[in-house]
Amino acid sequence: MDAKLQSYIDKLNKLNFKDMYENDFFLTWEKTDDEIEAVFTVADALRYMREQNISTKIFESGLGISLFRDNSTRTRFSFASACNLLGLEVQDLDEKKSQIAHGETVRETANMISFMADVIGIRDDMYIGKGNKYMHDVVDAVTEGHKDGVLEQKPTLVNLQCDIDHPTQCMADMLHIIHKFGGVENLKGKKVAMSWAYSPSYGKPLSVPQGVIGLMTRFGMDVVLAHPEGYDVMPEVEEVARKNAAATGGSFTKTNSMAEAFKDADIVYPKSWAPFAAMEKRTELYGNGDFDGIDKLEKELLAQNAEHKDWCCTEELMKTTKDGKALYLHCLPADINDVSCKDGEVEASVFDRYRVPLYKEASFKPYIIAAMIFLAKVKDPQATLKALEERAAERHFRK
Amino acid sequence: MDAKLQSYIDKLNKLNFKDMYENDFFLTWEKTDDEIEAVFTVADALRYMREQNISTKIFESGLGISLFRDNSTRTRFSFASACNLLGLEVQDLDEKKSQIAHGETVRETANMISFMADVIGIRDDMYIGKGNKYMHDVVDAVTEGHKDGVLEQKPTLVNLQCDIDHPTQCMADMLHIIHKFGGVENLKGKKVAMSWAYSPSYGKPLSVPQGVIGLMTRFGMDVVLAHPEGYDVMPEVEEVARKNAAATGGSFTKTNSMAEAFKDADIVYPKSWAPFAAMEKRTELYGNGDFDGIDKLEKELLAQNAEHKDWCCTEELMKTTKDGKALYLHCLPADINDVSCKDGEVEASVFDRYRVPLYKEASFKPYIIAAMIFLAKVKDPQATLKALEERAAERHFRK
Amino acid sequence: MDAKLQSYIDKLNKLNFKDMYENDFFLTWEKTDDEIEAVFTVADALRYMREQNISTKIFESGLGISLFRDNSTRTRFSFASACNLLGLEVQDLDEKKSQIAHGETVRETANMISFMADVIGIRDDMYIGKGNKYMHDVVDAVTEGHKDGVLEQKPTLVNLQCDIDHPTQCMADMLHIIHKFGGVENLKGKKVAMSWAYSPSYGKPLSVPQGVIGLMTRFGMDVVLAHPEGYDVMPEVEEVARKNAAATGGSFTKTNSMAEAFKDADIVYPKSWAPFAAMEKRTELYGNGDFDGIDKLEKELLAQNAEHKDWCCTEELMKTTKDGKALYLHCLPADINDVSCKDGEVEASVFDRYRVPLYKEASFKPYIIAAMIFLAKVKDPQATLKALEERAAERHFRK
Repeated sequence: MDAKLQSYIDKLNKLNFKDMYENDFFLTWEKTDDEIEAVFTVADALRYMREQNISTKIFESGLGISLFRDNSTRTRFSFASACNLLGLEVQDLDEKKSQIAHGETVRETANMISFMADVIGIRDDMYIGKGNKYMHDVVDAVTEGHKDGVLEQKPTLVNLQCDIDHPTQCMADMLHIIHKFGGVENLKGKKVAMSWAYSPSYGKPLSVPQGVIGLMTRFGMDVVLAHPEGYDVMPEVEEVARKNAAATGGSFTKTNSMAEAFKDADIVYPKSWAPFAAMEKRTELYGNGDFDGIDKLEKELLAQNAEHKDWCCTEELMKTTKDGKALYLHCLPADINDVSCKDGEVEASVFDRYRVPLYKEASFKPYIIAAMIFLAKVKDPQATLKALEERAAERHFRK
Repeated sequence: MDAKLQSYIDKLNKLNFKDMYENDFFLTWEKTDDEIEAVFTVADALRYMREQNISTKIFESGLGISLFRDNSTRTRFSFASACNLLGLEVQDLDEKKSQIAHGETVRETANMISFMADVIGIRDDMYIGKGNKYMHDVVDAVTEGHKDGVLEQKPTLVNLQCDIDHPTQCMADMLHIIHKFGGVENLKGKKVAMSWAYSPSYGKPLSVPQGVIGLMTRFGMDVVLAHPEGYDVMPEVEEVARKNAAATGGSFTKTNSMAEAFKDADIVYPKSWAPFAAMEKRTELYGNGDFDGIDKLEKELLAQNAEHKDWCCTEELMKTTKDGKALYLHCLPADINDVSCKDGEVEASVFDRYRVPLYKEASFKPYIIAAMIFLAKVKDPQATLKALEERAAERHFRK
Repeated sequence: MDAKLQSYIDKLNKLNFKDMYENDFFLTWEKTDDEIEAVFTVADALRYMREQNISTKIFESGLGISLFRDNSTRTRFSFASACNLLGLEVQDLDEKKSQIAHGETVRETANMISFMADVIGIRDDMYIGKGNKYMHDVVDAVTEGHKDGVLEQKPTLVNLQCDIDHPTQCMADMLHIIHKFGGVENLKGKKVAMSWAYSPSYGKPLSVPQGVIGLMTRFGMDVVLAHPEGYDVMPEVEEVARKNAAATGGSFTKTNSMAEAFKDADIVYPKSWAPFAAMEKRTELYGNGDFDGIDKLEKELLAQNAEHKDWCCTEELMKTTKDGKALYLHCLPADINDVSCKDGEVEASVFDRYRVPLYKEASFKPYIIAAMIFLAKVKDPQATLKALEERAAERHFRK
């Protein structure tokens, strides 16, 4: 057997991830360290096999259902790529074209689309308290449908961004870090600055900063969350970060100074988001159909944002990071000064210098998603990887 | 060979369905009893094989074209699942994104999309006298295209609901009944109540009640069509039902009393639809571009509907059915009292009790569609099923 | 080996097309004669293999990205068919559903969608000076992405129509001609009339007439471009046509008389387009956001068009062609007198007589696209075709 592929299998052999089989992926902190490590390992293995032109198609037929309740390019194509890599055909549930009756239960829709579905990917990040709950409703419905004999198989859910976490993004970010630093074992003591940054647009989801502090505190790193006063994230996720840090010998701290966060940082993640309290208020206004209230809130938030234009990832700030060379991360698209807007999250020269690493960061997402599906759908991943190598079907048949 | 699969093949061996090869599926009553039975048998066989993890992919490449002129979730996903199960990739003809020139003939469009199409599925149920005709125009065009050497293969048409029939729905309903009652042989003398029911929405298609009376009268059952005065269905379909009943020793009767229909019924199918005469009028108004007339008609119909709120499938009515336990059917989504609307087709407690069977009823549709395609695209279905078993490709490769 | 397939391979063996590997397809005149011939040959070979039920699926997984910035049926389905034939799943980049940030660079989007993309097909024909440039920007981005290690593979670009050329259309037209006349060797001295024709619609792209004169002048034919005064095409493409003609012993001439062009023509291609100068002006107005100016220009152009209603492919004109039987071509949909409009490009009786050949003309497009992809993605096409025959996977598994 190929030595590198064997090394991935060896790594998996040391991990306990048996509960991932026939399970779902909602939040990274609901998974054990071994499970998180298994996702990274399978993602690397699938990527390696694709690079070796070995097909990792484990489905001859089957659907991957996607439901995007918010626009998406990166995640949409990542999900499509992951499904396709494993042999599933993507079928998008476009709620505009669907005959989803007024008052139709989630339970019903979820079952009706899942007769031949092996995976359901959902993005639902717009309203606090809603997205993650909706995903659970879908999973409860298909789990019951499977138990009742309605569905031959239980599709696995992949959270493609909810109101709480953005696990496929943050795990792609993290796998990028692991590769950059040469392994998890080199991360202890590294400083990560997850910092708010100014953007002229309003109401960006909280799921990225929350996902980052909820995941990156698990590797013994010193994670700093920086934002202007009032831009707090969900307190329960901060609590997760604190517990993670305590358990792994790292730290989780907060500051209202971007400069303090960047100082000597090994990794910086400057990105805009909306204040949690404001997003809660917006959800409430939306629930009451108070659109005037939403307009008013939007104006207030834009005005509040505008007071913090100095929260920008400048060359000057980058110089203060470790050796002036911190790894700059972003989930993309970034608001770049004088490119996508006048004032934004990052200076163009900084962004340009990190463009290639940023694109590589993004390139992990399809493999992270594929690994999540693989681990949910295959009982013995090590044996299956081995069998795929032995099957030796070429991804691209050519002479 | 697997005994169960062999039993399906044995059943097929007794049937004459050779005319289905390279043919199309418009209306169930255009098919012989043997042909209908062949669809049920192949549907069961394909489902069984999928459950045994045997791939039934008969196409390495090829497109399944879908054209939905009305919103759809259930049928859209059923068609996508069926195509995918057989190896065809769905390509949706979205008339909004298409460069279909003003005045472009159906003949031209049908050929232009079919160069590599093995199946075309169409839903066109909105206007009386139009949908079924449109499907025939498409089939005539591709038949001629194939004959003329334009198309290498003639795609088969699957009627995904027209103005006259909804064959994939009604055959899924029927296969559900067959399984529930333990075989066609147990259906003789069973009473079926196809009943109108109140819905706050207006203008629901007639194709389900028509499809039901056109199909279910073929099994020696006593089919009762119940509706308030004025809610008649197409007279020619009633004529079909009468002839079917006469030929199979069953009966087809009509009543204006829901209670009478439900009394001692073994199967009930309470569902709203629009009066045939009103739908004809709407088609005419639409043809004349008389949108004020359409608005006026809609108001009249809603007012007319509102006089019949007592046509609801209540617990009380259900008690009057055979042993109080008639099988409740619906094509979904149902209008459920106090769930999707205040007053609707069915009480919530009735619907809830039958939820699992209803979902199972729906689960037959992908297999019914796949069977229709299979029988149109495979010359010797028995030998092909056998060959698929021998090929032994796994649908889901895993250890 | 099958003799006919061997003859295609023999033909390829005589051609030099090694630069097509890992390359892109923008404009036909950027390709050598051998390369153009290779596309025709592979298109014929793939079609032949499909007719023999031999699967030509060379990808077990992989995406074919489509981006249509203009409506499309024919090209959309041709691209989907071509991708599907080779094993790629089409994923449409719908710019309306995408989170493409204001100001996001083409470079970023192109990389983000390409992690598992083997081909990108783009239609961008609306603005002079923009479409082809956009395609180059995309190719530059993914080429760099591949070089930088962001993308495992460089997707190949297929120009599905730009402001300059419509290569998949014109090569399908040309392959149709080659088959009709029994081979390239019979084309010398044949007269082709690429003529403007009246249409009540405004602003049809120039890419078809340009593509036609840019390609058909390469086969020793006498190509005449006819249009009313003021309806010139891009001068640089006329220059290409002149050079082609000079090099191959044919001719390229211009006239303002449709009758002169049709006289003794072997092939006629009457089709509407917009004046190049007007299209340039429109692009400028659009760039300045001058929508009143665009409306005004539209009115002027419609008035100008209306002066040339006599530019119609009539029976009378057809009689003046070679033996009254010139091969009538059109990219479809055509504006047909009294069918799609009162006055249009062609009389209904002419169109009807050529309907079957026209549909056959269109049927080459999926194979032309597949051949372009095949030649870009396979290092040794001859060996690969041979290996596909030996693999002997059936496209349609059946007994």
